[in-house]
Parts: sequence; C-alpha cells; structure tokens
Amino acid sequence: MANIAKKVSWSSRGDDRGERTPLLNGAEDVKYTKQLSGGSKFYIGRLSTVDLDEEITTEEDIARSRPKEIPHNEKLLSLKYESLDYDNSENQLFLEEERRMSQMSFSCLEITRWLICGLIGFLTGLIACFIDIAVENLAGVKYFVVKQNIEKFTELGGLSISLILWAVLNSAFVMVGGIIVAFIEPIAAGSGIPQIKCYLNGVKIPRVVRLKTLVVKVCGVICSVAGGLAVGKEGPMIHSGAVVAAGVSQGRSTSLKKDFKIFEYFRRDTEKRDFVSAGAAAGVSAAFGAPVGGVLFSLEEGASFWNQMLTWRIFFASMISTFTLNFFLSIYHEKPGDLSNPGLINFGRFDSDCVEYNLYEIPLFIIMGALGGLLGALFNLLNYWLTIFRIRYIHRPCLQVMEAMLVAAVTATVSFAMIYFSNDCQPLGEDHTEEYTLQLFCADGEYNTMATAFFNTPERSVRSLFHNPPGSYNPQTLGLFTLVYFFLAVWTYGLTVSAGVFIPSLLIGAAWGRLSGIFLSSITSSQSIWADPGKYALIGAAAQLGGIVRMTLSLTVILVEATGNVTYGFPIMLVLITAKIVGDYFVEGLYDIHIKLQSVPFLHWEAPPTSHWLTAREVMSSPVTCFNRVEKVGTIVDVLSNTSHNGFPVVVHTVEVQDEPGKICGLILRSQLIVLLKHKVFVERASSRLSQRKLALKDFRDAYPRFPPIQSIHVSQDERECMMDLTEFMNPTPYTVPQETSLPRVFKLFRALGLRHLVVVDNENRVVGLVTRKDLARYHLGKHGLEELQLAQT
Amino acid sequence: MANIAKKVSWSSRGDDRGERTPLLNGAEDVKYTKQLSGGSKFYIGRLSTVDLDEEITTEEDIARSRPKEIPHNEKLLSLKYESLDYDNSENQLFLEEERRMSQMSFSCLEITRWLICGLIGFLTGLIACFIDIAVENLAGVKYFVVKQNIEKFTELGGLSISLILWAVLNSAFVMVGGIIVAFIEPIAAGSGIPQIKCYLNGVKIPRVVRLKTLVVKVCGVICSVAGGLAVGKEGPMIHSGAVVAAGVSQGRSTSLKKDFKIFEYFRRDTEKRDFVSAGAAAGVSAAFGAPVGGVLFSLEEGASFWNQMLTWRIFFASMISTFTLNFFLSIYHEKPGDLSNPGLINFGRFDSDCVEYNLYEIPLFIIMGALGGLLGALFNLLNYWLTIFRIRYIHRPCLQVMEAMLVAAVTATVSFAMIYFSNDCQPLGEDHTEEYTLQLFCADGEYNTMATAFFNTPERSVRSLFHNPPGSYNPQTLGLFTLVYFFLAVWTYGLTVSAGVFIPSLLIGAAWGRLSGIFLSSITSSQSIWADPGKYALIGAAAQLGGIVRMTLSLTVILVEATGNVTYGFPIMLVLITAKIVGDYFVEGLYDIHIKLQSVPFLHWEAPPTSHWLTAREVMSSPVTCFNRVEKVGTIVDVLSNTSHNGFPVVVHTVEVQDEPGKICGLILRSQLIVLLKHKVFVERASSRLSQRKLALKDFRDAYPRFPPIQSIHVSQDERECMMDLTEFMNPTPYTVPQETSLPRVFKLFRALGLRHLVVVDNENRVVGLVTRKDLARYHLGKHGLEELQLAQT
Repeated sequence: MANIAKKVSWSSRGDDRGERTPLLNGAEDVKYTKQLSGGSKFYIGRLSTVDLDEEITTEEDIARSRPKEIPHNEKLLSLKYESLDYDNSENQLFLEEERRMSQMSFSCLEITRWLICGLIGFLTGLIACFIDIAVENLAGVKYFVVKQNIEKFTELGGLSISLILWAVLNSAFVMVGGIIVAFIEPIAAGSGIPQIKCYLNGVKIPRVVRLKTLVVKVCGVICSVAGGLAVGKEGPMIHSGAVVAAGVSQGRSTSLKKDFKIFEYFRRDTEKRDFVSAGAAAGVSAAFGAPVGGVLFSLEEGASFWNQMLTWRIFFASMISTFTLNFFLSIYHEKPGDLSNPGLINFGRFDSDCVEYNLYEIPLFIIMGALGGLLGALFNLLNYWLTIFRIRYIHRPCLQVMEAMLVAAVTATVSFAMIYFSNDCQPLGEDHTEEYTLQLFCADGEYNTMATAFFNTPERSVRSLFHNPPGSYNPQTLGLFTLVYFFLAVWTYGLTVSAGVFIPSLLIGAAWGRLSGIFLSSITSSQSIWADPGKYALIGAAAQLGGIVRMTLSLTVILVEATGNVTYGFPIMLVLITAKIVGDYFVEGLYDIHIKLQSVPFLHWEAPPTSHWLTAREVMSSPVTCFNRVEKVGTIVDVLSNTSHNGFPVVVHTVEVQDEPGKICGLILRSQLIVLLKHKVFVERASSRLSQRKLALKDFRDAYPRFPPIQSIHVSQDERECMMDLTEFMNPTPYTVPQETSLPRVFKLFRALGLRHLVVVDNENRVVGLVTRKDLARYHLGKHGLEELQLAQT
Repeated sequence: MANIAKKVSWSSRGDDRGERTPLLNGAEDVKYTKQLSGGSKFYIGRLSTVDLDEEITTEEDIARSRPKEIPHNEKLLSLKYESLDYDNSENQLFLEEERRMSQMSFSCLEITRWLICGLIGFLTGLIACFIDIAVENLAGVKYFVVKQNIEKFTELGGLSISLILWAVLNSAFVMVGGIIVAFIEPIAAGSGIPQIKCYLNGVKIPRVVRLKTLVVKVCGVICSVAGGLAVGKEGPMIHSGAVVAAGVSQGRSTSLKKDFKIFEYFRRDTEKRDFVSAGAAAGVSAAFGAPVGGVLFSLEEGASFWNQMLTWRIFFASMISTFTLNFFLSIYHEKPGDLSNPGLINFGRFDSDCVEYNLYEIPLFIIMGALGGLLGALFNLLNYWLTIFRIRYIHRPCLQVMEAMLVAAVTATVSFAMIYFSNDCQPLGEDHTEEYTLQLFCADGEYNTMATAFFNTPERSVRSLFHNPPGSYNPQTLGLFTLVYFFLAVWTYGLTVSAGVFIPSLLIGAAWGRLSGIFLSSITSSQSIWADPGKYALIGAAAQLGGIVRMTLSLTVILVEATGNVTYGFPIMLVLITAKIVGDYFVEGLYDIHIKLQSVPFLHWEAPPTSHWLTAREVMSSPVTCFNRVEKVGTIVDVLSNTSHNGFPVVVHTVEVQDEPGKICGLILRSQLIVLLKHKVFVERASSRLSQRKLALKDFRDAYPRFPPIQSIHVSQDERECMMDLTEFMNPTPYTVPQETSLPRVFKLFRALGLRHLVVVDNENRVVGLVTRKDLARYHLGKHGLEELQLAQT
C-alpha cells in the first residue's frame, strides 16, 4: 500500500535527490504501535455520541476482523509532508539584523515587495498570454485539419477516417502532455489548486514551486487543451502564478544554478508564502480577468492571518497580471490599446438591459443551486471512486500516459458519434461567431449544433451557451451533451495531465442551465422574461461549479468579474451558497477530496467543535529529543541521522536532577543545525574563527530552502568530540503552552500564527512534549464524532 | 485638557451610570511619572535615525520649554478605553459545558448563527429602507415648499424671503438632529465608522452598540440629510447594522429590560464581535447595494483572523440585507418584484457599450488619482485642524448644536447665493430626470444647472453628475461648486450630528472629475471617446473618496457594485491605489485621524518595523497584582476597589520563598470576580452551597456585558474573612511569553489571537509582568522613528 500510494502521490518520484523529506518531530514509534494494533479508527467522539455506541462497536469489530485490508488513503495521515515555518525564528542573528536596519531600510524593503509583486503579476500575465496564444493556434490547426477532412469525406462517405484522424491527433497531443507530466514532473498533474491550497496552509509539497514544474505545467496544459480533453487552462494558471512568485521573490533559480544576489531578505518561508499568495491571486486574475476575485481566492483558500498591507500587494499583483495579459493579447489580436480581453476566458458581455431577473425567479435559482449541489456531489463522488481505483491500479507512469491517451481517443470518438448522429441543424447567422462550424449533413447555409458544443475548445462552447440567441440549441442535443460531457469530465479530472476543472464544470452547468431555460420558456408564454436561456445557462454554470469546488465568496466575484455584469451578482451568490450547502451534505469539495486522498496534514480553519475534552497532553508527541544549550557535535550528528525530527527544543538542566526533563530555553531547527555543522561552528574553533568570518544570517539564507541532508555532511571523529554553542542560533522565545491547554486552544494558536512546532511545558517550564501539524491534523470530525487518523509513512 | 477632551470625546457623558470603565491592568504610576517628567515624546527610534539627532534634540528642547502647553490629543493614549476579550476564558465551567455538548448541539449552534445573521441582514435592510423613505419624503416636502416659494418670489422680487425660509427649514431639521445627538447620545455623532473600526479592533467604546444609540443615529441621520447638510446617509448605516447585530445576537435588550432567554451561548465578546462584523457588512451592503463590498469592508477594516465559515455568514447577512432593502423599496415604489434598488444610493446604470476606456487614458486616470490623493489629504488636514479647534473650544452640547445650525444656515445661504448668481441655464430635457428643477431667472423650458447640484439631495446630485448628457453643466458652475462644496464638507464632518462623509466626498470628486472630462473634451476633437464627462465624474469621485478614507480593495468592489459596471473596475482600482499612496504621503485617512484624536489604543496590523529591539520586559507593566489560587475575599475586594485592573494572574507560591513572584497558574478577569463576589462563592459556604445551585456559566452570561462595579457589591466584615477558590473560574491556560520576546513577536501573538492580557513570565514560569493593549498601542512610527505615546486619563 505504502508503495502504491507513493507511486501516485503528488510528490512521487524515484529520485528525490537529497530531499529525503524528513519527518516531523514526534514519536513515530508510539504512533506506529497504534497503527499496527489493528487500529484503523479511534472513535474519540464516542463520549458525545453515546447512542451510536452499538454501531461503532460493530464497525470496529469489522475493521479488526480484516486487519490486512488496505486502508483507504483518506484514513491515513502521511508523515511524508513537512511543514513550512511561518513563524520567524527570532534568534540573535535575526534580531541583530533587524535592529541594525533603519526605518529607511524597512521602507526600501516595502518598496521592493511592491516591485516584486508587480513583477510577479507581469510574468504571470505573460505566461497566461503565451498559453492562450499557443492553445488558440494549436487547436485552430487541429480543428482546421479535421474540418477539412470531414468536409472531404462527408460526401465521399468513409467518415471513419476522419474519426481516426481526430482521435489520433487528440491522442498525440495528450500523449506529449502526459509523458512530460508522468515522466518528468508528476507534481504538475491536475489543476494544481489543491497543492497551492496545501502550500498556503503551511504544508511543504516537494517540488511544487520549482521552475521545472512550471515549464511542465505550461507545456502540459497546452497539450491537454489542444488535445481536446474536457479540461480548462484556468486552474493551472493559478499554480503557474504561484511558481513564478516563489521563483521571482527569491532572486535566484536553483534549477538554473543562477543567484542574482537580490531579494536575499525574502529567503524564508514567511516572506515566500506572502509572495506565493500574490502569485496565486495573479494567476486567478489572469485566468478569469478577475483581479478582485483573485485576491479573494487567495484569502478564502489560503491566508490565515489577514494583513492589510499584504492584501494591497496581492491586489496590485492581480491588477498588473490582468493588465499585462490584456495588453499583450490586444497587440496579438492587432487591436493594441483595446483592453477587452482581461482574462484567459472571456464569457462575453451580458447586455444589462435585456437580461433582468425578477423576484419570482429567485426560487427557481435556488432550485438550480440545489441541483448544482447534487450534481456536484455526484461528480465528486464518482471522481473519488475513480481516484481510489487509480491509486490502486494505475500507478506506473506508462499506464498513466496510456490512460490519458485513451481518454483523449474516447473523447474524440464520443464527440464524433454525437455529432454524427445528431441531426440538429441551425441556419448560420449572418454575423456567426462560431469559428469552427461543421456543415456535415446539414443543408447549405446551416450548421450542426452538436458540433458547436463538441467541436470546439470548451471556453468557446461555454460562451456559445451563454450568448447564442434563443433557439440555437434543441433540448435533446443539450441533454445528451450534458450527460456525455459530465462523465467525460469525471473521467478526465485526475488524469496525469496538467489541466483544470473550472471550465468543464462551467460547461456542464451551462448546458443543463440552458436546458432548464428552454424548458421554462416552453411551459410559459414566449417573449416573456423567461425567454432568454443564456441567463439560465449562467446560473447553471455557477451552480455546477459551486457544487464541485464549493467556493462561494471568491467564486461569486470571479463570475461577476468574468461576465462583466453585476446584475447577476445576487442570484449567483444565492446559487453558490445553495450549491455549497446541498453539496456539503453529501461529500466534500473536489479539492478537499484530493487533498485528503493524498493524506496531507491539512489544517482546517478551526479544530473540530467536539474536541474540547482533548488537551495538549493527549495530543502532543513525547518524549521529545532535546539539546543542551552547549551540545556535543557527536550527539547532534547522531540525533539528526537517527531521527527525522525537524525541530528540537533547547533546554537547560537544573543542577540537582539530571534525568528530569530540562527547562525550555529555545528551539532550534534541523535546517539550522545542518548549516552550523556544515560551517563547523564549534566552540573549540572559536579562537580560530575570530580570524574567519562570523556565521551570519546570509549563510542560512543561501542554504534555503534546499538544506543538504545530514548524510552529506562529513564530521570527523575529532570533530565529534567538539562542542557546539546553540545560544546564538536558536529561537530563544518559542511559543509554549501548558499541558492542560485544550485542543481548540492549541489549534487556534498554531493556526493563527502558522507555527511548525509548539512546545508543551509543565508548570516548571520543563519540556514535556511537542505539538506539530500532524498532531493537530490527525483529529477530524467523522460521521461518528471525532475520529483520529492513523499516521503512516506513505 | 483632560476635562475638555472628555467633554467632546465619543464616549463623553456626565452620567456614566455604573459604568466607570475601569482602566486596563497596568502600573499607571510608572506611566504617569513618565508623562509628568516633562516628557512629551520619547524618540525611541533615535538609534536608527542617528543623522536626525540634531533636530530631535532641538524639538525636544522646545517641547520641554513649554511644558504647560496643552498636548494634542493624538500624542496621548487614553486609559479610558477598555479592551474587549476576544480570547475565550477556557475555565473549567466553559470546558465542562463544551464537553457536554454533542455534535448535534454544535450543528444547532451553527444553524442558529446563520439564522441570527439572516435576522441581522433583514433588520438592517428594514432600517435602511426606513431611512431612505423618511429622507425622501422630508426632503421632498422641504424642496417642494422652498421651490414654491422661490417661484412665487422670482417674479415679485424679494427672494431673500425664500432664502430665509430655506435657511430656517434647514436649521430646524439640523437642530432636531443636533439636539438628540448632543444631549441624548453623543456617541451617535459622525459616521460611526471610526467607532466600529475600533470595536472590531478590540476596543470597547462605551455605549457604541446600544439600542438608544441606534435610535438617535437613525433619527439624527434623517434630520441631517433632510436638513441639507453636506452629508450622506451611508456611513451611519454601517453603525446601525453593527448595533442591530450586537442587539439581536444577544437575544435581549438591556435598555428595554427584556431578556428573550435565547442565544445565551453568544453572550461573550468573541461571538458578539463576529456578529458585529456581519452587521457592519450588512450595513455597507444596504447602503451601497454592495454585498461583496460589505464583506470586504468588514474584513479590511475589522477582522484580524480570517475564518471561512465566518466569512460566509457575513456574506449571508449582506445578501439578506440588500435583498430586504430592495424588496421593500420596490413595494414602496409600487413596482413590487422589481429589484433595481439594491442600495440606499443608486448611482444609476453605466451603459457598458458607450463608455469604454482606452489604454492612453490610463495615465490620465493615474493623474486624477494623484489629484484625489492631494485633495483628500487637504480635506483631512483641514478637518484635523478644525477638529482640534472643536475639541478645545466647542465642547458644550448647546454650542455644538448651535454650530450645527450655523453650518446648516450657511449651507443654505451659500447654495442660494450660488444659484442666484449663476446664470447657467439649460433646456429641460424631454425625459428630465431632475426632480427639483428651478427655473429661477432662466427662460421658460430651461432650468438653472447650479440648482441641480445644490438644490437637491447629494445622492441625486452625484447621479446627475455621472449621467447627465455632455453639455449639461458649464465649467464655471462646476468649478465654483467644487470649491464651495469642498469647504462645506470639511466644515460639516465632525459636527455633532449623525452623518457620513462618503456622499459628500463622491460629490466633490464627481464635480471636479466631470470638470476634467469637459476640459479634456474641449482640448480634443469632439465626438471622440473623451467626450463623455460622466466617466471622468466617476473616476474623480473614486479618487476623491479614496483620498479621504483610504480604503482600496473594499472601495473598489463597493463602487463596482454600486455602479453596476465591471468595466471600470480596473481604472477605479488604479485610481484608488494612487490616491492612497499620494494621500498617505501627507496625512492619514480621515477615520484614522479621528481615532487618533480620541486617543484610542488602536492596534494596527503590525508592530512598527523598527521596534525589534524592544522586548516584552520593556513593554510590559509591572509589578502585577496577582491573586492566590485560594484568596481571601477581603483582599480581592480591596484590590478591585483600589485598582482599575481588569485581569489578574493567579499564582501559586513555592514554599521556600514567599516574597518572590509566584508561578502562573491561571488568569482571572475582574468581571468574573465581580460575579463570584455577587454570588458569594466562598469556600466556607461550600457545604451550604451544596444545597444551592452551583454557579454556572449562565450566571456570567446573565451579567454580560454590563457587570456591576465593585462599589455596588456589599461584602460584610465577616465575609471579608472568608476564602474564595478561584480554580474553577480562572482560565488555567493563559498565553504567556518570556521576557526576552521582541515587541513584534508579542504584538503578533496579541493581535492574531485578539488577546486582552498577555502574561510575561521568567524562565521559572513566575509572573513578572503583564502586557495589555495600551502597552502595545503606545509605540508608533512617527516622523523621527519610533515614538512612544503618553498615557493619560483623558
């Protein structure tokens, strides 16, 4: 199981090259015992759900009776993921540096932050522009070739050749996209939104913000969209923006081995996280032309502590991003200065005058929202089962590529079949906006409507559904299209290609929304306010997307900004909230499902409400490996080699009792110790060091974020006997809590401050335990009250 | 000085009836010494601004040479304001209650929260509706009477009678508004936004969320708008929403002496704050028809810890609020079901097609933003001086009312003079939207344009400036209007009437914006894209408002939602950011100025950047008054009577050393002790108490938030000898920091968790100090580096 899970997990790579992702500090032994003792689930919440006691026992028995069954991933919590350190280690070096800085330097830093945010926005906009143009051209060539071919064979007969051509072209594109993702950078698969959510939550997903990931992501998304899969290019933009931000803000690229020696101050998790939020926002902004929506997305999905200055910087990055995209696209479309392409997706303009809504439509919107929630839950459930299947059986890269190609071929075949058997012809409008119309078996001057839905990039299909005049589609076409596309989209999400789920969701929703609109106008008198199905398409799209991803506030703003129309703000909100409530009743949002399936120790906004009876004492890991203020190098090296802990309390022992735990006087990180060992900062060398340069913050920053593993550091036998003084480098004021602190209280402190290690002390200030992310993420609210996840090395 | 400041401060009232607003815990003596020792300013930042040393010394000398000069209020920090306690006191009672609750109870609570938010939105919407209709009718009657009169006298001559009529009518309205505010509830003066900002920041402004305040606020705003002052009714809506929220969520009204015995769980600061955020958002939403803007306003101005569920509830309240307003207004306007009045202000619809903007206009927008920033800074500066003048000289209620009446009369006179001397006539349009047109000396079928700007509610004037066709105004009219209205608005803000500054700002901006538009179209060829001055009016309005209040993100969304047009989103953002940057260079935002002038211990988002060399040791108050776990009643009563501290660490003393500070084992609040004393929870009575009811959380909740003063509790001499066991009631796990913690670190903990007391301990866990809000708010970044404010009893 561990192996299987490892193979398909986000960060699965054989060659982790010096990044062994050490475990969090904690007593794994204890946890493993729990896990092995047949354990599966611990119904901690039983106290509060006494009436369910009978059932629980039964279930527990069942679980015990088949201890060999492979547990589902979501019942585990992976020990593989490290935490990010959003709490500055305020050691002496840091404080000295901060105190040396004048007010002017801080102002310069602030200006630099704005500059970087501008740069992030600019580059993200450029990338979006590149993706857009590349997809446009590749898809254009593909559809042109296929269309020529179909037209040739429509009269001759033998359309199966066209089908094969289409399927082969699609599969070829997808193959390229699949291969680069599966073999070069598996983390680039999917939309990247779950990964960015985790990153902003404080979980270090290996390689998620690397340059290579960005390149693979961008190429991958171009291939998969051009390959005609039921995917969008919007989700990946968010990931791309985040990578750009992480790269630019550090002023260097480790992959390219290039250090510009700038922005060194920002080389730590705290600052990097802020820039990554800005990057994600810039990505959303470029994808949807929704700068405010981007800011809200970053905040809704990521930030925990709202800071006004940060928000403004994020906002600035978003603005620059959409502006850059708009500007370059206007040049590309040879209308320089015409800023009408603010995002990758252009929903077209809803004309305000003709599309009003009325009071009595509101119940209808709510019903559509509920329907969206239901369909979204179904989507998520199906995708969940599929993902479990994939985790178990489709874990070799070549299998993954083959699956992706199969989906591409099937998509082409199904689309072809649908177009072929549909006999829904519509006259070509005078100012027809459909770019790739297929005449097929229709009369001259007419076109096949099924083809506008299938023989097109999904973005264009959505736009057609929103804006084509009433009567453009017949109900059968739409119904069939919804059904088919729904299952195709379910199958597609989670493939090893880089692709987003926004557009397919919108498309499904727009299709059944328009269908509802047609239905409504058919049962009422025509020419009434019901008559415009485009409005219902928009509402349906919102409902479906809300039902799948379960965002509300940011999605409302994104949709309002993307449609350029505020009138529908209120109905969209209503629909999104309804969809969320209905959907949440059945199953979580799609991104959360995938985060859970990866066993990521994700911290939600609050501790489970029924966890008040747990205290730090029960939650913490103990005993804790501590160091003395002046510690033998040999001990440090041994501890670092033999454990995988990342943070170590530094203690002083009272003279009388030696075997008692020591009093806390600081906290030092593995990464800091590694740098100290590398630079041989030993007490015995202090005299000779006087001639040398004193170790400065710069040395830590240079090593950030890829600190070498302990194995790569050579320490001679002589050196092992030396002593190391940690005083200057440890954080002398780590946050501590007493043992009696309740879990919600610990959680609040941990979450609000973005901690990585929280030291638990007794009333003598002696270290008795350590709380890390996994200790808190372990408890979650299941169906039967509070449940405890198992920890595993998957 | 203290007396003067007290008289005009927000919470100034002679009869504080049992609400003596005790001071924060802290050693005032120490601070007073500092203050008295000639001190004025402490240039702590001098270390980092060594080059400025010479000047500083000079300034300090000057300050010392006139020690008797009344210090400006903003150099003081008032000890009058209490903090709110956003950190739950997790004592045994609380934990027991939480542990008893099943998952179902938590779900019920959550549903209740949603219901309350819905109710808050509904009531806020109703209030907005009431204000709108009342203002509309009163102003309608007034303008009708005056118009009749003017028309009568235009031909007869003797228009001075009309002027007097107008001035008297205005003054009468304003007098009523002024009297109720000045004599009944001074806290209802102004827009209420600074007060709500403070409340959400964690400062308890006395009486700010009372029912009486709401009534006075609503009546006051109706009077001042109907009285023709240069004010808006939007700001007060935000305050009203907050009061509604605070009232509804507590399930009782202390003013009406009515307890519905519901929502008792929410009777604590943490929960109440969340509802107040929702109320403020609902207020914005009703005022501008901007539900998303409302949420953002609440977050930008108030919240510190972003919680997703909370955001959704706030969003819900906002939605309901705008919907309610819309619905009832549609009924009032006899078009039920037509949801086109989402807010109090209706900017009218910007038609998307005819008003595009182009790339080369962006520099123009930026210039306008800068201009807005400059004018905003000027506005704030003038208002700042005026406010200081008012604080010193106009502090008696009757003087305040007279000033308000004077402003009303002057406004009417100036308006009349402007209209009288203007000879700018325009032909009446066929579908003229101006409701109160004045013909005056114009030819038949024409009207006086100056009158459309002055002889109108400000909302209508803004709308005219946005939408009237090109050529409706001539430049001289606009220029003069801008100039006059600017000074009127400066004079008006800060009067003792309840009124907002949003609309006047928008109006000033719209006027000079439209002027810029006219200027631009005159220097270019007509019929070009420049030709529409309405666009520039909008940009100018945004610039001016941004320059005055300095909000960006929320204001962008509010303006976008209020204009119903997304096209201008980007320019508005640009303009707002420019205005903010330019304005911040000179002076703070208007609300911040007023908060500072009230010496409120307001915590900003971050500690000053150059404060890293300060540690908890320097910042904290010490020595701290502590209690033992089991303490003599007499001691407690004496301490409560003789100090004004609000929180007391509970300590245990080690056996050996008695005079050393004790080890921390809990924290108890004054309010809790008061309740304990009131219920006589003494150890000696424990046996008899067995028969009695045990003290429960309910008793604390019943007393919340108006705990009686210690003086009102009678403790007999016998009882003074009893002991009180605090174990069950104290918070056993208060947050603590070591003495070496740097100020930014202390600040971060304090701000992120919304603390009221933070205990500073040594490495033996002994209490050595206490950090409260005023200790942190004291340090701020002045012109010469870090400065320390004085603490004063004002």
